[in-house]
This record gives sequence, C-alpha cells and structure tokens, in this order.
Amino acid sequence: MSLKRKIKRKKKRPISELRQDLVTNAWVVIATGRAKRPEMFANEKRAQMHVSEKNCPFCAPNISRQHKPTLVYENENKTWSLMVIPNKYPAFKSNGGLGKKQKGPFIVKSGVGFHEVVVLGDHKKPLAKLQELAMAELLDSFQERYLSLMNRRFINYISIFHNHGREAGASVAHPHCQIIAIPVIDPDIQRSLNGSMEYFKSNKQCVHCVMLDWESEQKQRVVFENNEFIAVCPFVSRVAFEIIVYPKEHKPYFERINAQEKLELAQALLISLKALFKGLKDPAFNLFLHTSPCDGKAHDHYHWHFIIMPKTSIWAGFELGTGIEISTIEPEKAGRFLRKQIK
Amino acid sequence: MSLKRKIKRKKKRPISELRQDLVTNAWVVIATGRAKRPEMFANEKRAQMHVSEKNCPFCAPNISRQHKPTLVYENENKTWSLMVIPNKYPAFKSNGGLGKKQKGPFIVKSGVGFHEVVVLGDHKKPLAKLQELAMAELLDSFQERYLSLMNRRFINYISIFHNHGREAGASVAHPHCQIIAIPVIDPDIQRSLNGSMEYFKSNKQCVHCVMLDWESEQKQRVVFENNEFIAVCPFVSRVAFEIIVYPKEHKPYFERINAQEKLELAQALLISLKALFKGLKDPAFNLFLHTSPCDGKAHDHYHWHFIIMPKTSIWAGFELGTGIEISTIEPEKAGRFLRKQIK
Repeated sequence: MSLKRKIKRKKKRPISELRQDLVTNAWVVIATGRAKRPEMFANEKRAQMHVSEKNCPFCAPNISRQHKPTLVYENENKTWSLMVIPNKYPAFKSNGGLGKKQKGPFIVKSGVGFHEVVVLGDHKKPLAKLQELAMAELLDSFQERYLSLMNRRFINYISIFHNHGREAGASVAHPHCQIIAIPVIDPDIQRSLNGSMEYFKSNKQCVHCVMLDWESEQKQRVVFENNEFIAVCPFVSRVAFEIIVYPKEHKPYFERINAQEKLELAQALLISLKALFKGLKDPAFNLFLHTSPCDGKAHDHYHWHFIIMPKTSIWAGFELGTGIEISTIEPEKAGRFLRKQIK
Repeated sequence: MSLKRKIKRKKKRPISELRQDLVTNAWVVIATGRAKRPEMFANEKRAQMHVSEKNCPFCAPNISRQHKPTLVYENENKTWSLMVIPNKYPAFKSNGGLGKKQKGPFIVKSGVGFHEVVVLGDHKKPLAKLQELAMAELLDSFQERYLSLMNRRFINYISIFHNHGREAGASVAHPHCQIIAIPVIDPDIQRSLNGSMEYFKSNKQCVHCVMLDWESEQKQRVVFENNEFIAVCPFVSRVAFEIIVYPKEHKPYFERINAQEKLELAQALLISLKALFKGLKDPAFNLFLHTSPCDGKAHDHYHWHFIIMPKTSIWAGFELGTGIEISTIEPEKAGRFLRKQIK
C-alpha cells in the first residue's frame, strides 16, 4: 500500500459512540461517521406556513369573538398580551368521568382532562424574539394554569409545550403554547421517575444534580448559565442541538418557581432559543417541560427541566423500531457552536 | 334552550379514548374529537424526492462500481434483482472492540456493529408494487443476513427496516431496506420483552396470542389474513392506519421462518402495503421488524411481528414530552377503510 493511500486511510472518520442516558438507561448513537458541520443544519429547507394575520384564529379580532378566555394578561395600554383559551379541537375534555373499563383484554379510560392554548399577543413574534419580561409573563401563565389544574379531579400529570414550525407539528403560525392536563402517567414518564429514584437510592444524590456538576466542570456542552439556571447540550443528546435548561439547585416541582427564578429562567430560555434561531436560521423545534407528576405522591428525588428539541432530523424505521436515536452532531460541537451565537 | 340548539349540542363529538398497550403499558389517545375521515389522510402534500435513475447511487451501473456486495440474488437473465451492500455512511461499524468506558458519570461504548443496505433491483418499483415472489425474496435476504449477523461478536439485537418517502426519513428514492446489528438492547425493546414476559408469568399465555385471538373474534380491525399470518390495525394504534402483521401461531424468532411462511408473509405484507398505497395515495411510511434479541438468552415468550407505521402526523411537544401518542382515527375505522381497498 502506498504512503498516500495509508494517509488517506488514517483520515477515516472515527466509529460512532453509544452513550447511555443516566436517568432512563436509553442509548443514543452519536454518529460521528455521518456527522455534518454545525452550519450545515441551517441549510435544510423549511416548510412554509400560512402566516397571514387576516384569517389567523388567534389574532385579536378573531380570538375575542370566538373564545371565552380562561386567563388574560393585559399590558399598560389595556390590550391583551397573553390569553389562555380552551383548545377548539381538544385531545382531552373535562366533561364526564374517568369511565375506566375493559374492552376484551384491554383497559380503556375516557380522555378526561384539560387542553388549553396559551396565545401570545403578537402574531409576528416567535418565542425567540420575545422580550425577557414577555417570556417571564409566559412562565407566569404556565405556573398559574398549572396551580389551577393540578388539583382538579382525575388530573395526575400536566404537560406544557410549544411547537414551532410545521416540521415540529405546529398547525397555526401564530405563536402559542399548549397545556394538557391528563389522568394517566405514561411508562415513559414513569421510567424517568423510576430512574431518578433508583439513582437516588443507590447514590444518595439526585442524578440530574450529578450530571449538572459534571457539565459545569467540563464546560464544553454548557450553552449559557446565570445564577439560578444552566442550559446544556446534554451528553446523551437525543437529537442534534438538543438543549436542556435546568434549575442549578435541586428543585422537584416546577409550579413552586418564584419570581426571581422566573426572570432568570426566562433569560436562560431566551438566550438558548436565540442561539438556535441565529445559528440554525430559525429551525423548527419542540419545547416541553418535564416536572414531577401532580398525582398526590412525593417526588422529591426528581429535578424539573425544560427540553428544547430542534427538528433537525426525522425518526425513521431504526429509531421507531429500537428506541435508539441517532444524533448526527456531537453535543460538544453543538455546545461550542451555540455559545458562539451569543453576543 | 331551543330544541334546535339542543339537537346541535347532541351532535358534539364524543370524548376521546385512552387505550393502554398490553405489552408496554404505554397509553395512546384515540382522539375522536380531532378525527378526520379516512379519505382526508390521502390529501396531505407529500415531499418530492429526487428520483432520477442517472445519479441514483443504487442503480445498476453505479452500485456495481462502488460497492462490494455482501449478498447478490440474480434472476433468470443473470441480472441482479436484490443486492446487500455495506452502508456508505454507517451508524455502526464492525472494526474495533466494544470499548466500554466511563466518561464522568456516564457509560459509553463504541458503535460496534453492522449497517447494511438491501437494495432492490428496480428503481421505480416501491415495495407496494412488488410481485409476491420478489417480496418473498426480500424476506429471504432478511433471514439470510439475520442468520449470518446474529452470531457475530458483540451483536445482541438486529433491526430490519424500510423507510418510504422523505417524511418517513428516506434519503434515497431507490427502494431499499436496512439491517442494523447492534451490541445493546435499548430499554424500549427491553420494556416490550419484560411486558411480554410478565404477561406470560401472570396469565400462562402469550400476550400477543391473546390479542390476536380477540382481534380474530372481533374482526373489525383485521385488514387481511391467510393461513399463517394476520394483519391488523392494532386496538392501541400509535399512529393513524398503523398495521401489524403477526404469525398466527406463537413464534418467538423471525430467523426461523420457513419457506411456506415466507410466501404467506410476503402476501400479507404486500396486501397491507397495497391497501395503504391505494387508500392513502402512496403515503410515506416506516416498516420494521420486532423480534427476539439474539443475545444468547431464551425469549420463548415473545411473538415476532412486522409493524407498518404510515407517516400521517408529526410527533410534537406532547408526544415527545409524555410518550403518549395521539391517533386521529379510530383503528376500527382504519381497518374497515383498508379492507375496502382490497379487491
């Protein structure tokens, strides 16, 4: 073999790495062999959404005619800046009982619960463009609705999320979040709770706190931090450019967040979203909260957090069939790239 | 309230239903409130893929120049009808060892394994358009590669899958399947194995056999059956128009399929795919095998099957955050609609 060929061989990309999640034990593949440069994720074509304000169901004249809001925040000019309304096509409804029954070998329950939409006032301002105070107000509404829904009958878990862009499942362009309060705790959530509990029992420490200590020390995957919060590209990233925002101190219950923490969380979320917006040119993404269930049990071992998952790839047959996700950029590179976007 | 209004109220769509999977205990929402008529799923816009044969990496002249095939099936004219090649951008590679190590609090392993592509001869013929014998030949290649890979060092699980359409993650239009042999068993798979085992311990019966008996009796969700196989829209469908094809008899290990079974499976898969192709106008979909791991342990309680998941919706913040999927058509309606497509 000639020297030239030998050198060429040496340049071969390294074998990919399997990383195991500490909480769920799930594996992800960090596929360095398929990896792209960070900038290349920005060139993906994005599906366009209908964005006209005229027929927008959430713009001021339409929304006030059609919906009886559950919650309205007004600004100093007496125009609303945020409104919580019931979802017109709810996945869960509050009428009726749990209606648990057996169908053949299966158990079914009624989809009893609440499905609300948190609508932001400005049609044209995506979350990444909000002012810090507007983001803190959005967190206020999350907390207010959480505290109201958590004690309702049959409710054991509350999911709060935001979908941005058609690829991430958004069907209305007008910026909005959703709150779904449900009677069941899915095995996926149970697995995280159990994993966190098991780790606590074995190590006398919160698994998330241990990860965060390591991330703070390592620094390479940290996107941003302030006094109370830290945003990291997790070591076991399920998708490229995933960011998780955690309270630095151990906190099991999101709904107990205080005013100062909301301001700092607003800053950490906004800086993370702006870094993605700038670096990947407004990618589609999902943002969601993971917090302890409101099932009346203690979950003091858990540590709540917000997850931001950019839609940079599609889960296909392998991911669906095995549960193993393939991330096509190392979170170390993603972290460095996102930090560079922050002025 | 006037009579007219009362009648209008009565037409309100029923509350959605939560159904619990018997194997994994996962919940799905059958969201009747958001449900569409079956025909409406066919109207979704599909992303176009580059389909020219000239630059296709898998068409005859290109493929034979670039790849050393692992397996070739030739037809009577001595032209190849199926070829298995190593993936050019593998997520897993066979060089090197397992390299298990600790990084901070995490465990990592090398992505050691095999990643192969099963390329079909005809660029223009999607799986749904194959002849029954060509489909049986594809199953032959799955079995042949499975049997060869299952005893390789470090290999504990083999995933076989097909992605059709860009929305389902396909990046090359030329019809092909993939085989990935990996060293780890993800908790998602483990959960199914454990669920199946637990059910067996409690009920002295295979959980899949119990479901199939009930489906056969109920009939409404059965898409097709022959002597050996049955295709059903599962009672707990994770997505609209999901189809699962099971051997009717209890069979834990796909790789032990015999010639007659392969022919009957080919028929059941083809009829299912054709019904989707016709009814939903060539939807994007993922097809994947769930079978017992090849980790040297006995998994006699398990019952292998192929899952077909049309890409009729996008998993967004709620699904990602809670693990609960929302299916926007009742599998009973999907079953009836798909049966109607079969002549």
